[in-house]
Amino acid sequence: MFSLNIEFFGYFAAILTTAAFLPQLIKTIKTKSAEDVSLTTLIMFLAGVFSWIIYGYKISSLPIMTANILTFLLNFLILISKIIYSKK
Amino acid sequence: MFSLNIEFFGYFAAILTTAAFLPQLIKTIKTKSAEDVSLTTLIMFLAGVFSWIIYGYKISSLPIMTANILTFLLNFLILISKIIYSKK
Repeated sequence: MFSLNIEFFGYFAAILTTAAFLPQLIKTIKTKSAEDVSLTTLIMFLAGVFSWIIYGYKISSLPIMTANILTFLLNFLILISKIIYSKK
Repeated sequence: MFSLNIEFFGYFAAILTTAAFLPQLIKTIKTKSAEDVSLTTLIMFLAGVFSWIIYGYKISSLPIMTANILTFLLNFLILISKIIYSKK
């Protein structure tokens, strides 16, 4: 029962910190602007999330790999959107 | 040796995904604007990171707790900055 509670917090945390970037992507596409979003933050975060994917692979953790692959994809799309809209 | 490599990726990932938010905070304070930063993303991310802190506490993982407390503080300051500057 207690270990179920622990797992719950882990999965809840993973879902929230992954899904959190969807509203940012939607906002960026809607407003066609991500000027206030730091490019350095995006690049550092993507490098960090990529390291989490490698770490998840090395320790054979599917939840770590899945959550970080999704987080990577969402933030990569935010980065691409920022670059596209900053050229206008 | 191999396990050292694994730990390296874990710590490298944790440092990057934590420190990544410092440039966003500096940019927001410098430009006095975070209009393009999604409020929903910040709130969801803070809730997720808070859950990671609880998870880290429950599994007695100091690295998870430390990294997420710092990530929480940085993102909380970004949220406060966004709210302050949006009122102007």
